[in-house]
Amino acid sequence: MDIRVNLGDHSYDIIFEHGSLNKCASLINLNRKVFIVTDSGVPEIYAKTVNAQCKNGYVYTVPQGEGSKSIEVFKELLSKMLELGFGRKDCVVAVGGGVVGDLAGFTAASFMRGIDFYNIPTTVLSQVDSSIGGKTAVNLNGIKNIVGAFYQPKRVIIDPEVLNTLPERQISNGLAEAVKMSLTSDKELFDIFENEDHREKLDEIIYKSILIKKSVVEQDEKEKGLRRILNFGHTIGHAIESEEELNGLYHGECVALGMLPMCGKELRARLVNVLNKLNLKSSLDFNEESAFLALTHDKKGEGSSVKVTKVLTPGEFISEEMTFEEFRALLKIIKR
Amino acid sequence: MDIRVNLGDHSYDIIFEHGSLNKCASLINLNRKVFIVTDSGVPEIYAKTVNAQCKNGYVYTVPQGEGSKSIEVFKELLSKMLELGFGRKDCVVAVGGGVVGDLAGFTAASFMRGIDFYNIPTTVLSQVDSSIGGKTAVNLNGIKNIVGAFYQPKRVIIDPEVLNTLPERQISNGLAEAVKMSLTSDKELFDIFENEDHREKLDEIIYKSILIKKSVVEQDEKEKGLRRILNFGHTIGHAIESEEELNGLYHGECVALGMLPMCGKELRARLVNVLNKLNLKSSLDFNEESAFLALTHDKKGEGSSVKVTKVLTPGEFISEEMTFEEFRALLKIIKR
Repeated sequence: MDIRVNLGDHSYDIIFEHGSLNKCASLINLNRKVFIVTDSGVPEIYAKTVNAQCKNGYVYTVPQGEGSKSIEVFKELLSKMLELGFGRKDCVVAVGGGVVGDLAGFTAASFMRGIDFYNIPTTVLSQVDSSIGGKTAVNLNGIKNIVGAFYQPKRVIIDPEVLNTLPERQISNGLAEAVKMSLTSDKELFDIFENEDHREKLDEIIYKSILIKKSVVEQDEKEKGLRRILNFGHTIGHAIESEEELNGLYHGECVALGMLPMCGKELRARLVNVLNKLNLKSSLDFNEESAFLALTHDKKGEGSSVKVTKVLTPGEFISEEMTFEEFRALLKIIKR
Repeated sequence: MDIRVNLGDHSYDIIFEHGSLNKCASLINLNRKVFIVTDSGVPEIYAKTVNAQCKNGYVYTVPQGEGSKSIEVFKELLSKMLELGFGRKDCVVAVGGGVVGDLAGFTAASFMRGIDFYNIPTTVLSQVDSSIGGKTAVNLNGIKNIVGAFYQPKRVIIDPEVLNTLPERQISNGLAEAVKMSLTSDKELFDIFENEDHREKLDEIIYKSILIKKSVVEQDEKEKGLRRILNFGHTIGHAIESEEELNGLYHGECVALGMLPMCGKELRARLVNVLNKLNLKSSLDFNEESAFLALTHDKKGEGSSVKVTKVLTPGEFISEEMTFEEFRALLKIIKR
């Protein structure tokens, strides 16, 4: 199934198809030098499968984790491409999750001021969210995604088969972002989470999530307005995440928690049930004061209040200004 | 005088006006955090003049020279901006020549995936050429401009007054690029170089050059075709440059030499006269074999022949494929 992302000159297709990894040479032009970026946490076989379809491919494996989203690793990738004689007409292919996609995408965006980039996301999180929309970046001095580019891929290949090797916890981690999109934008998708088995409906959930993300990105490519709804649950989520990194909570797990205080009371109870079904936490024992400090630090550029998205009814969002003190009170809702 | 560069969503104005530096606060929005990038070779007063018009400005001075166009300096700039609490709505202003513009432009392009960028070029070379067109970059492993972005400024402020402090040799260096543009695209401009005093006509030369560059960039923003004519004289020029860097020839001085073999015989004699008037060399004692090696290395990604621009009549260019062996013969034309 092809999903067209309409962005004028930067339009491209998302190929959503079982088995597409095995035939990616028929979907993207691999008949040139191909720099395949993956990480040590991604099953090797996926990058190898792409490489086997290239005449002139090279697999570059970075260490798993956010640490690889650095200017130093970015420079290493570019240097290797130079060493291999990459030119303007060659390409970069990301095979992995969000870290690989963000890093490889920024590398492709910057090498010779931009060469073709393809993304083959291998996690639920990257399939439903980070692979779509052209946000690429690395981190700097502990600040996430602060250096990067809006750079659209030439094509995204989504093969649900690759999720067979993904641990259950990682599937739930990605589905948290799908729940997020259902809450702001798609009542029917939220119904699936509430009333059906997400394992049986995984294809449909991914497909519907892609459609939501695509639609938001089409309306607001450069994050000037509407795209903010994709940050639903993220203000509190990030605050917990910076607190919880040592405790090892994943991004989606923190977003799941972060959404709860931003829902109306009645919906919040329904969301708790959904999170329980997905084995996602709905409360946490965390240090409220440090989380609050992280939140104010994160948002300090925006003045004394922050624009947030709230949801009272699935599929409908509202935008509101919220003061820091109001946030402090909201943190209590998810404190165990 | 305002010159509009029409690039759809990325359109912007070039302000060409005596005294514009002193009133840049009325031309660009300095009412926010302003990161002013300059280098140690630019008279300090120019960045100070901009800073004096800011409420919240910061001047960052990098060492003069190509060495500052590195990923390390790029990272330093970004780190300083983070430290100063720069946000999405703040801006970067380049005050200097091509090195500063390229470095500051790529920094603005990458910080939070792109914030507003303004360019205030202070050399003839950057006023007629590098400040227009959105090419930003740093160097890597000895390869120039290999890491960067196409990122258009919000506005370019060209104040010819700043050229009063520029050494005569730097003026000629910049005018070499103006001669280049006249040869491919503007017979009248070439007439000025042939028949008039370039010092008296400097404003007109700069203005006409901007119009040529603007027109080429409008037709080919991402360098897919026509924009190649701006590389007229650059294939041989770069080869000499990589040879001559130790001997201290400037970029424009090398391009001046590089144009000669790419002109028809009759025009070449006229160009020699123009270069003499500008105190630019028309021949050089250099090592042909190393220059040839540099040329083939530079172009190795393009196969056994290279697409080049030639000029027989001022204002008209022709495109041709040329083999490496043909280049070898052409090098003799400028060998002293």
